[in-house]
Amino acid sequence: MQKQLLTHINSPKELRTLKQDELPQLAIELREFIINIVATKEGHLGASLGVVELTIALHYVFNTPEDLLVWDVGHQAYGHKILTGRKNIFDTNRQLGGISGFPKREESVYDSFGVGHSSTSISATLGMAIASKLKGENKHHIAIIGDASIASGMAFEGLNHTGVTDANLLVVLNDNAIGIDPSVGALKQYLTNVKKGTQKRNNIIEALNFDYSGPIDGHDLEKIISELERLKTVKGPKLLHVITTKGKGLKQAENDQVKYHAPGKFDASTGDLLPKSGLIQPPKYQDVFGLTIVELAKQNEKIIGITPAMPTGSSLKYLMEEIPDRAFDVGIAEQHAVTLAAGMATQGLIPFCNIYSTFLQRAYDQVIHDVALQRLPVIFCLDRAGLVGEDGATHHGVFDLAYLRSIPNLIIFAPRNEVELRNIMYTAQLGLDQPIAIRYPRGRGVTIDWKQPFKPLDIGKGEQLKQGKQLAVLSIGAIAKNVTEAIIDLNVSHYDMRFVKPLDEVLLHNIFKTYHTIITVEDGTVKGGFGSTILEFASAYNYKNRIKTLGIPDNFVEHGKVEELQKLVGLDAESIRKFILSIQ
Amino acid sequence: MQKQLLTHINSPKELRTLKQDELPQLAIELREFIINIVATKEGHLGASLGVVELTIALHYVFNTPEDLLVWDVGHQAYGHKILTGRKNIFDTNRQLGGISGFPKREESVYDSFGVGHSSTSISATLGMAIASKLKGENKHHIAIIGDASIASGMAFEGLNHTGVTDANLLVVLNDNAIGIDPSVGALKQYLTNVKKGTQKRNNIIEALNFDYSGPIDGHDLEKIISELERLKTVKGPKLLHVITTKGKGLKQAENDQVKYHAPGKFDASTGDLLPKSGLIQPPKYQDVFGLTIVELAKQNEKIIGITPAMPTGSSLKYLMEEIPDRAFDVGIAEQHAVTLAAGMATQGLIPFCNIYSTFLQRAYDQVIHDVALQRLPVIFCLDRAGLVGEDGATHHGVFDLAYLRSIPNLIIFAPRNEVELRNIMYTAQLGLDQPIAIRYPRGRGVTIDWKQPFKPLDIGKGEQLKQGKQLAVLSIGAIAKNVTEAIIDLNVSHYDMRFVKPLDEVLLHNIFKTYHTIITVEDGTVKGGFGSTILEFASAYNYKNRIKTLGIPDNFVEHGKVEELQKLVGLDAESIRKFILSIQ
Repeated sequence: MQKQLLTHINSPKELRTLKQDELPQLAIELREFIINIVATKEGHLGASLGVVELTIALHYVFNTPEDLLVWDVGHQAYGHKILTGRKNIFDTNRQLGGISGFPKREESVYDSFGVGHSSTSISATLGMAIASKLKGENKHHIAIIGDASIASGMAFEGLNHTGVTDANLLVVLNDNAIGIDPSVGALKQYLTNVKKGTQKRNNIIEALNFDYSGPIDGHDLEKIISELERLKTVKGPKLLHVITTKGKGLKQAENDQVKYHAPGKFDASTGDLLPKSGLIQPPKYQDVFGLTIVELAKQNEKIIGITPAMPTGSSLKYLMEEIPDRAFDVGIAEQHAVTLAAGMATQGLIPFCNIYSTFLQRAYDQVIHDVALQRLPVIFCLDRAGLVGEDGATHHGVFDLAYLRSIPNLIIFAPRNEVELRNIMYTAQLGLDQPIAIRYPRGRGVTIDWKQPFKPLDIGKGEQLKQGKQLAVLSIGAIAKNVTEAIIDLNVSHYDMRFVKPLDEVLLHNIFKTYHTIITVEDGTVKGGFGSTILEFASAYNYKNRIKTLGIPDNFVEHGKVEELQKLVGLDAESIRKFILSIQ
Repeated sequence: MQKQLLTHINSPKELRTLKQDELPQLAIELREFIINIVATKEGHLGASLGVVELTIALHYVFNTPEDLLVWDVGHQAYGHKILTGRKNIFDTNRQLGGISGFPKREESVYDSFGVGHSSTSISATLGMAIASKLKGENKHHIAIIGDASIASGMAFEGLNHTGVTDANLLVVLNDNAIGIDPSVGALKQYLTNVKKGTQKRNNIIEALNFDYSGPIDGHDLEKIISELERLKTVKGPKLLHVITTKGKGLKQAENDQVKYHAPGKFDASTGDLLPKSGLIQPPKYQDVFGLTIVELAKQNEKIIGITPAMPTGSSLKYLMEEIPDRAFDVGIAEQHAVTLAAGMATQGLIPFCNIYSTFLQRAYDQVIHDVALQRLPVIFCLDRAGLVGEDGATHHGVFDLAYLRSIPNLIIFAPRNEVELRNIMYTAQLGLDQPIAIRYPRGRGVTIDWKQPFKPLDIGKGEQLKQGKQLAVLSIGAIAKNVTEAIIDLNVSHYDMRFVKPLDEVLLHNIFKTYHTIITVEDGTVKGGFGSTILEFASAYNYKNRIKTLGIPDNFVEHGKVEELQKLVGLDAESIRKFILSIQ
């Protein structure tokens, strides 16, 4: 029987007491530990399995936490978390009050930089390396970045600056040819050619003044360790190209890397996914988007779909499969995605640019400068708006209403259910003369019978959902569901305003003249969001009604189930109900 | 005497009737035309002089406007404007009601994409090229981009996507080794080596699947034309590397390329700059920033300065000259600049990250995700906030208050004068435990005697500037000047709130209890901005006061003198005064 090593490892210091020939056994145990816990607790699986050896080697060779590791994106850092003192709480991963699914500074001194969004690691590590140099410290600074993430513009900016410094910085390129979906782009093709030996080593990386080494097998501990040891003595910027297999060690995860990126519950011994509930459920908004754009694109040949690296997550994959010529996965390149859409719109195409709400923050300038300023009719579909759940603070799509509504020329709509999403998509492609942002949440909606015939929506028209006397609740988007539940037996009115911009001023005048108290509800930041728009309306027309705004308070919201988080911020049905009762 | 050619050219069609051997003469005339007008009307000089031959060649070879040209940034497009029907109105360049200093779709069919911010051209052109292909049109699509702009992450994203398409797209790399300031970065070094012949032609560009040609002399019309003719027959993505001299044809502009980027008025015959007014004037906010950071950095060795490609414009050049180790020009890389600062802050440095307000839109996600979420004490100095004048709609810094104030953990301050800017910089570097954004306008302030001893400011404290009875005006930042003037003989109070976040709630309670009517004034977008914050305060505490919010209305503001634009949007002293009188 093999010695149990992982049981005794509670810090990298302890890891570094092992003999090198014990490390392969540790890798087996670490992999098993990750599989066993993720099988029941869910989470990101494939990425962490792929870097088990690399993780062990990095902590074995470098003197963490004095030497600084930055994991790009961070969903590959489970092994890192387990080896750095979080083994015993790893089963709380991504749960409310538990550890984060991503490295996080307040969680551990080994998490030198908080991550979640991609391609930040080189910039952050360079900042650290410059600081070390100025302070006269002789540290190592290591960014571990995947081949999908390094192709993003921000990573290029980091490389381009690093290459003209003498920063003591090592970029470990974890090349598994896949992000969440398979990697795309010219750089990816190039890296593939380097791996195959059909491209010379005198490469892009060296052209940017990096010392390049590799490619090496990222599952060969001996090889990685000897390379890292050698690179410790190389001064200045350097890049180690490591080839890994996403999902390594679990057959199914290796074979279906997209599905096993974050597979949900599965059988730890066989790897088989556990069957989902057999109940008929409402569809995911994502599927409604994906199936509807296919339906529309078949009727309207001007329609194009664009996603920055999220074909599966957004369900744009359906269009990619059905009409590949008109569906584009541009990689982790939100800035490019938006301006590409703008360019298409100038030529009369109708681009649906699908970007997660939190990632559109990466293309804010392009929305203003390239789309709205030119009044180009790009259709933004902002997926995963509102609280997203277990991905937590880095991923909640709660800022969008606030950051978008100050942009002139932009229509902003949030569907309260699947049918509304379908109908606004239908309406938008009929031909708007300005851009529109459609924001909808992650996950399932409320309408099992969602595939109803298309109906055009009136731009800027809200809708009354319930009639009552005591006050009016104005909601925007899918949070309407909680409001409906909250007021089921209360004598209050409920309006779905639908459009944050343009506001339905006719309806609002009516509401302001009818009710003394008005409550706004949104699953976005209460500062500057939808509620704030209503306050501005009241100020403009000198209304004196009492207005109360409910939304995400002015702090970052952690990870946990969406329902738990809604409760935490007072947006679950019960909290909304209590609030209404408290102010009547 | 030479034939006068330019007089007769009112469109590219007419240009294409010339014989090729007449083009050098046209180049002379075009250069002279630009110099004569910019000498008296001001504007961007050097960039357009550098591409005179390239501009002529592009319109000579390609069938514009059917073939689509996109000028990156666009301040090099004066020759393009003059040759495409705007010769007779070119003297209205950058003036209110006149033509824009940048290509603009609504101005001309030859301006196929509006520009202003850098590095958008490849993405936009690719969008057009994909559209042409889908429509079965056989067009050429040309992006003209400088060596500073191509080093930005967004441009890389465009190249990376283009390289895996068969888009009929030509990138013309206008390599003059300078943006507004000299170009920086590893890619720039690399391009320099290509030019010198010390780097092989099998280069980065070819690695990204582009057909590379060049480098060629960008002032040799015959050579450019023959290359462009050849490239017309090459299918797929291709890049032509053209070497030009910024300021070409005006000795002083060639010799001092930074100063002659936009030199102000000068003598057209000699090139000499005209003397500025001899009056003693208040300093520019930029100089106050630049000189103050030097002063502080000498006392506090943790201070770092960062600029994305604006050392001269921001005046960070003073720190670069005095303490080069601690001042970084990272190139056109706002995303990287912000996360670099975050990385430094994790190690205890105190980074001042100076970014123009309009360009921080490029790094919005990094401010949220890398700085605010981790509560890292980065000091953002947002230069050119508010209306910037002649650069116009693409450059006004009017969204910042709205897009920043929904971000948790962030302090937001706007100095009303130079002394306040100095003191907040002093205060910030004493050691905050959270980030701060300091936004100030382009140009001169109000205080000649600005260099006063440092005084720490209380975070979140506003200040009463004038006592009156009828109502209270609350302003933020430098627009206070207009308010002061507006109310000079009115019986109203004036408060400089200073902090948009945290709000001075003590002061606000006092104000709301004292005055029935409250007017907010800001030079940012009225939707979601400072005024909106005050509305939220009133709603939270159930105040029923009448509140009126003045600011930039919900549309894009054109170019013109700041004073003219303020009048246009109702923020000049007279308009503010009229508004106050109208509602009393």
